[in-house]
Amino acid sequence: MSAQDTGAAESAPDLDAGLLSPVRVGTPVEAAVSDRAYLQAMLDAEAALARAQAGLGTLPPSAAEAITRAARAELLDLRALALAARETANPVVGLVAALTEAVGRTDPDAAPYVHRGSTSQDVLDTGVMLVCARALAIVRADLERTADALGELAEQHRDTLMAGRTLALHAVPTTFGLKAAGWRDLVLDAAERIGRVQDHGLPVSLGGAAGTLAGYLEYAALDATAGKPDPGDFADRLTAAYAAETGLNRPVLPWHALRTPIADLAAALSFTAGALGKIAVDVQSLTRTEVGEVTEAAVTGRGSSSAMPHKRNPVLATLIRSAALQVPCLAMGLTQCLLAEDERSAGVWHAEWLLLRECLRLTGGAAHTAVELSAGLVVRPERMSANVGLTGSQLVSERLVAVLAPLLGKARARQLLTEASHTAESTGRPLAQVLAEVDAVTEHLDADALVRLLDPADYTGAAGPLVDRALRRQD
Amino acid sequence: MSAQDTGAAESAPDLDAGLLSPVRVGTPVEAAVSDRAYLQAMLDAEAALARAQAGLGTLPPSAAEAITRAARAELLDLRALALAARETANPVVGLVAALTEAVGRTDPDAAPYVHRGSTSQDVLDTGVMLVCARALAIVRADLERTADALGELAEQHRDTLMAGRTLALHAVPTTFGLKAAGWRDLVLDAAERIGRVQDHGLPVSLGGAAGTLAGYLEYAALDATAGKPDPGDFADRLTAAYAAETGLNRPVLPWHALRTPIADLAAALSFTAGALGKIAVDVQSLTRTEVGEVTEAAVTGRGSSSAMPHKRNPVLATLIRSAALQVPCLAMGLTQCLLAEDERSAGVWHAEWLLLRECLRLTGGAAHTAVELSAGLVVRPERMSANVGLTGSQLVSERLVAVLAPLLGKARARQLLTEASHTAESTGRPLAQVLAEVDAVTEHLDADALVRLLDPADYTGAAGPLVDRALRRQD
Amino acid sequence: MSAQDTGAAESAPDLDAGLLSPVRVGTPVEAAVSDRAYLQAMLDAEAALARAQAGLGTLPPSAAEAITRAARAELLDLRALALAARETANPVVGLVAALTEAVGRTDPDAAPYVHRGSTSQDVLDTGVMLVCARALAIVRADLERTADALGELAEQHRDTLMAGRTLALHAVPTTFGLKAAGWRDLVLDAAERIGRVQDHGLPVSLGGAAGTLAGYLEYAALDATAGKPDPGDFADRLTAAYAAETGLNRPVLPWHALRTPIADLAAALSFTAGALGKIAVDVQSLTRTEVGEVTEAAVTGRGSSSAMPHKRNPVLATLIRSAALQVPCLAMGLTQCLLAEDERSAGVWHAEWLLLRECLRLTGGAAHTAVELSAGLVVRPERMSANVGLTGSQLVSERLVAVLAPLLGKARARQLLTEASHTAESTGRPLAQVLAEVDAVTEHLDADALVRLLDPADYTGAAGPLVDRALRRQD
Amino acid sequence: MSAQDTGAAESAPDLDAGLLSPVRVGTPVEAAVSDRAYLQAMLDAEAALARAQAGLGTLPPSAAEAITRAARAELLDLRALALAARETANPVVGLVAALTEAVGRTDPDAAPYVHRGSTSQDVLDTGVMLVCARALAIVRADLERTADALGELAEQHRDTLMAGRTLALHAVPTTFGLKAAGWRDLVLDAAERIGRVQDHGLPVSLGGAAGTLAGYLEYAALDATAGKPDPGDFADRLTAAYAAETGLNRPVLPWHALRTPIADLAAALSFTAGALGKIAVDVQSLTRTEVGEVTEAAVTGRGSSSAMPHKRNPVLATLIRSAALQVPCLAMGLTQCLLAEDERSAGVWHAEWLLLRECLRLTGGAAHTAVELSAGLVVRPERMSANVGLTGSQLVSERLVAVLAPLLGKARARQLLTEASHTAESTGRPLAQVLAEVDAVTEHLDADALVRLLDPADYTGAAGPLVDRALRRQD
Repeated sequence: MSAQDTGAAESAPDLDAGLLSPVRVGTPVEAAVSDRAYLQAMLDAEAALARAQAGLGTLPPSAAEAITRAARAELLDLRALALAARETANPVVGLVAALTEAVGRTDPDAAPYVHRGSTSQDVLDTGVMLVCARALAIVRADLERTADALGELAEQHRDTLMAGRTLALHAVPTTFGLKAAGWRDLVLDAAERIGRVQDHGLPVSLGGAAGTLAGYLEYAALDATAGKPDPGDFADRLTAAYAAETGLNRPVLPWHALRTPIADLAAALSFTAGALGKIAVDVQSLTRTEVGEVTEAAVTGRGSSSAMPHKRNPVLATLIRSAALQVPCLAMGLTQCLLAEDERSAGVWHAEWLLLRECLRLTGGAAHTAVELSAGLVVRPERMSANVGLTGSQLVSERLVAVLAPLLGKARARQLLTEASHTAESTGRPLAQVLAEVDAVTEHLDADALVRLLDPADYTGAAGPLVDRALRRQD
Repeated sequence: MSAQDTGAAESAPDLDAGLLSPVRVGTPVEAAVSDRAYLQAMLDAEAALARAQAGLGTLPPSAAEAITRAARAELLDLRALALAARETANPVVGLVAALTEAVGRTDPDAAPYVHRGSTSQDVLDTGVMLVCARALAIVRADLERTADALGELAEQHRDTLMAGRTLALHAVPTTFGLKAAGWRDLVLDAAERIGRVQDHGLPVSLGGAAGTLAGYLEYAALDATAGKPDPGDFADRLTAAYAAETGLNRPVLPWHALRTPIADLAAALSFTAGALGKIAVDVQSLTRTEVGEVTEAAVTGRGSSSAMPHKRNPVLATLIRSAALQVPCLAMGLTQCLLAEDERSAGVWHAEWLLLRECLRLTGGAAHTAVELSAGLVVRPERMSANVGLTGSQLVSERLVAVLAPLLGKARARQLLTEASHTAESTGRPLAQVLAEVDAVTEHLDADALVRLLDPADYTGAAGPLVDRALRRQD
Repeated sequence: MSAQDTGAAESAPDLDAGLLSPVRVGTPVEAAVSDRAYLQAMLDAEAALARAQAGLGTLPPSAAEAITRAARAELLDLRALALAARETANPVVGLVAALTEAVGRTDPDAAPYVHRGSTSQDVLDTGVMLVCARALAIVRADLERTADALGELAEQHRDTLMAGRTLALHAVPTTFGLKAAGWRDLVLDAAERIGRVQDHGLPVSLGGAAGTLAGYLEYAALDATAGKPDPGDFADRLTAAYAAETGLNRPVLPWHALRTPIADLAAALSFTAGALGKIAVDVQSLTRTEVGEVTEAAVTGRGSSSAMPHKRNPVLATLIRSAALQVPCLAMGLTQCLLAEDERSAGVWHAEWLLLRECLRLTGGAAHTAVELSAGLVVRPERMSANVGLTGSQLVSERLVAVLAPLLGKARARQLLTEASHTAESTGRPLAQVLAEVDAVTEHLDADALVRLLDPADYTGAAGPLVDRALRRQD
Repeated sequence: MSAQDTGAAESAPDLDAGLLSPVRVGTPVEAAVSDRAYLQAMLDAEAALARAQAGLGTLPPSAAEAITRAARAELLDLRALALAARETANPVVGLVAALTEAVGRTDPDAAPYVHRGSTSQDVLDTGVMLVCARALAIVRADLERTADALGELAEQHRDTLMAGRTLALHAVPTTFGLKAAGWRDLVLDAAERIGRVQDHGLPVSLGGAAGTLAGYLEYAALDATAGKPDPGDFADRLTAAYAAETGLNRPVLPWHALRTPIADLAAALSFTAGALGKIAVDVQSLTRTEVGEVTEAAVTGRGSSSAMPHKRNPVLATLIRSAALQVPCLAMGLTQCLLAEDERSAGVWHAEWLLLRECLRLTGGAAHTAVELSAGLVVRPERMSANVGLTGSQLVSERLVAVLAPLLGKARARQLLTEASHTAESTGRPLAQVLAEVDAVTEHLDADALVRLLDPADYTGAAGPLVDRALRRQD
């Protein structure tokens, strides 16, 4: 099943060129989680295992070197391995055969040491963790770049007045700086959760056929140059060596049937996609033709429509949102895979593979897209200001209640403002004008006071200091 | 962006060779829903649209022919189109440019008629429906073959005694025929739901930029050889012609923002995967080493382990179950896409594409695998019989209550059997022996009667006639 | 466990008064699916079973009457039954004991005939189907009332011009009539799917302990006044009689482990919630302060905020959307329950109960709310018209391309309009003015032609006839 | 809307007595998350806010005391508040009115200080966090008790031999101690994730109408005894005081639209349910009639069937599994709520409430049930041993390959064992007998060596030391 001798193997059609998933097509994470990358990662696991065993003196160093040399995806026929996986329900059985053959071609003595004492799941799961480690590094870097760009927006627009919106309507004033600072805070939350998985959540898999390492120990007893090893000590040292060779964490126990790492990945990726999705829906809300407070960066050809020449669609936010809608569904499938019966489930383990890859590349694509979105976002303070003015100060009605309540009683103050707001709404007159005709108001507030109280720019609360506070958070 | 002139375009890495999804790798549905197949289907939509317009006299027949000739996926650069889709958030803008160029190379006069009056969504959604039509035909045929094989099993084992199991324990006797008939019934339910979508649920998409067909009408007015067409009449006839050219259904209204077809597909595919998954978990339950009542067909190399030579894993059931765990999650994402705002959502539409393809190929792979599983299943009546005997007739304890209740009172009869069962359980003696020592029993039932009443084979109720009844159902 | 004698039983705290689910609180469906309603439905199932057995001559008519008389939820202690269900993992074991006791109080001879030959699942599943039948009738009626109201809106606003919006931006003109007709079409799709379940998808459950009806047959043999019945014939007639007594459908096979009815319910309810959710997000999009094209009916106190007196929040759309976001998640859980191992799963069956009830009441609440929303929706054609005018005719740019393409070539026409649109956008000038200064345009189109071509009201395509066509669809 | 004066208010029917959710009925978490508990928690939030404001000198201490005294759920009409929530889409508007009235009855001067400067979301979200804090403490304690019981099982059965099972079949030997240690490890993972949320993930909500705290600041300026406060400083101090009064964390920013806490709760609860579900499916696998290696504790009446007196169903595992199947679906809905547009979403926020409560009580019920399951689990070493013997040492076939590979070559050794295993399987003879007739084997291994090598008890690898290692982990 090496690449050279499978001329007869069915060639892979263009199964996936990214046509249906523009959010990740061509982004770095896409290549990092390709089938070829998975194959390489599983080969890396085999090679690391051999080196770890060699380090413990239970495998000839020259064999470890030969295995490491041969463990290159380009020497194997990816499609043939994929097709063969139907017979055994996993791709490792075929991979071991192909790697053994490849090793044997250059070093026949080394061939028997391939996959020594091992089991499919150890290799596949360790390969998955290696792919995740590489993909998460990409995601993390993109989150940090996104946070930086959002931090700049927050700083620059610390005091840019805009309408706060709740339940689809203008509520009270806020600032664009506070909104951007909130976006950044979410992105830092995501980076933190991804980082936690990077630091503690990517263990090597090393348990053998049912988690006891019996196969490794049996071979070690046969191969050891210095007497039969103590089981506990050897298990400890082999796990540590394997972790060191792969750069992954070492687990408390073999986790073949204890799928915490998968569930943690699912949670971190789902959170990240959702956090970016929040930014996307906000950008879309602000981009609407009638609102027009932000637009995505103008890039020639980007956002064009096949029919309508005037459009410049918010495509980056669209792509991010498309990922954010998908990832939680896929991630939930992964969480459910915790219910894996026995020492290895017949189907639950197998359901993880595709779901996890898709979570990685959709989230990674979204993070990559978020860098572009945040770095290029065009903010229009003048439109924000104009929109704040649209309702003639209704969005400070809350404040007037506060001011009038001690004077008129809270219930009456509230009732008065409700009526005045509706009058302003239905007549299209500014709230100040309407209130200036209400005796109960003018008894207590003169025209100047009304004007000042009704100035939205004077009612942004602690928005500014909150931005400052949020920007002090480092990732 | 034609295939010839994109030497510089980034080549697609091996993103997906099926390595992580053995349930569908190499099965017919995989090719039917490949990116290449989607591209071809969108090109088919463009060509069908041109022919439909030509049929109505608003496009030169020669242009329709030229477009049809050029609408071949192998003439375009799939990866380049995928990459270009990032700029516009869908692959159609680039496809139209590439197709226009391809048409122009052989018939420059025809080029302006490509995508005449159309919009990206009409082409993409119609392409999606064509892909679904092709994939569902494959799924349907595999479901029918599965039902046939299960029907044979049910007929053959109409009276094969086995333990009915509830909450993990032996309950009362049943037959393997009834179990297989139930599996078949579920598969027929699935075929019926898939068939309903095939017959009524795959409409062409034809609405133009916002569902009014204004673009089509504008061009028709310009291009018509026989005067400006009546909008309603023209919209009707164009939709009908487009449906006829594609072989798809015609919708009541343009469905660009009314996603019933997608939700219906999601429901039918999710049901199908779940129905097959039920069979898989049952097969696994019966395959367990201690149970051993069925095994998958013995095929050389199949089901082998990378570590354990004695194993012949139930790989087909494993693969089916892996799909059944994934599809409902993906399908749910599709159902949620009903919440698509406005005339076209910024992201919700885009979230459908990948999820639907994955539902199609996982379900299709499961159906293909189910044909193999059901046709090759090895049934072991002797193990079924031995297992029925394991608990010494406890699984007819229900019957004894029925018989003794009129004689002793229901509560006392029940209490007596509960105690006798526990005695039988703890001592390992047959229930008949235990009961034969209970005066309250022997007063009413002699040894012969006890033996007959405690014969599990005499307590299968209506299992046989139920099998007959179920087999009369045709798909 | 009757209501009278459980003074010691822990009283139910206020577990659910609807506080966290305003979308359904106080609506008719809430009471129809309460725990009390479930208890009554299970009692109805017990009574119907007794009558069905009596009709076949295997149970004394007087016993069936006594059981029917006693089968009243108010005679039992609901909370005590719920608490007892922990011991047996279902509430039927306790219910049978309590019902037997209640029957025995008035007719001791009838008591042994309670639950004769039956099993918990038959009673619980039949009870669930009865609850569903009652709830779906409510949902269906609300969908029809919603469709009627939307039909009126569509008719009334058949030609009310508004901006079609895609990817958050103005696209081309459409009409509010077409939008409302689309909403109605979705609601009719939902009613059709609910109706299909009502007509064919609510079967009685009758299989006994493992689906063979052995218990029923054993008692029938003992109880029959006219000789031991033929198993197949008796199973057929008992199922038919049970279906007739309950008003439910009769299944092909006992469906204890073949969960098609549950999956079908999940799909229909999920679709319905999603369809209503689409309307809700559209209403919210049109309600936004800057858009202001629709508002919910003004009802005193409704939509008020605890802080902001000027607000009149779109609360009905908010409630509907909240349900539409939840139901697909819950429904997916139900679909996954197809993977129920053996003759009765240890946990999968049990996972259905709560999810299904929640689907019913969230969807029912949304449907009820949708009646209010659609019947009271205030439409503001003047705001629609003003918004169409906002971008100075950019939303007919597509049309200009169509007109100019034959004159200038398609690519050049498109390029010209792209530039002109951007100029119009950046300068705030109407597109007509910008185009009137472009020689390539004025060579072909005079000022009058430009004005006519750029009139959005003249570019609604087939919107009107499409509304007419859609309104001809009856539910 | 106080409890006294709503005689006319529709009384709550028995909406939820736990009948459909035995996993949590009557457990402590059920009461901790009842509607009444939510109401009390929101009242606690109002009272804490008043005290925090009093502490900062912007509210009379006597008013804070009066509000605290009146903030008792039993003084309000829960059902009436729930019904009123339909008008405003949240229950806080009505709660504020009712609380104000209740305060006014005893201290009219204090009434205006209720909900001073606040907004519905601050109160509801803070109330939700308080409910979560109380519920998580219960869950955490139950997880720790479960871990303790599992630790004892692991210690006690450190060396109890059993079959490791993969893909439904016997694989290689393992020990029950290692299995129990793995379960414990998962439970500790869950406790750790719950603990992380308890320690850092439950923030007060304090932002006012749109997250700027403007309302609080406005009232503070009016009410302050010592001059208008500095916005940033006051916001800081008020948040700190509110956190101190409630015992919750203080957030970086108001999180009204940044839903990290909800997503984190969803992830931790979903993980916990899944971890417990893993134990449940394992227990069920081992409980099967043919396997019989464990049973749940025998408790009179528990696990009984309505039909079959011999059964003692594994009801605790069944209940736990039923929860584990539901929670991830509900939790996913919560994760998706990250996509909340603007400063407060119209519907997304509202979708969280029910889903979160259900996650809490299903997970809490599962944890409570897991304590009973793990503390009472009956382990049967003799059945484990008998099952290991069932296949005549096939489950050490892996070991023989290891031993023979250096002697015969790996491929030949593997082939030989595959054939010998199949011979053993088909003839029912022990593997040792079969191998003892193979020359290639007997050349190298004498009968004694074969017996020793084929002893499953001698092939448990590092199982024992792994148990020791795992038990050193503290929660």
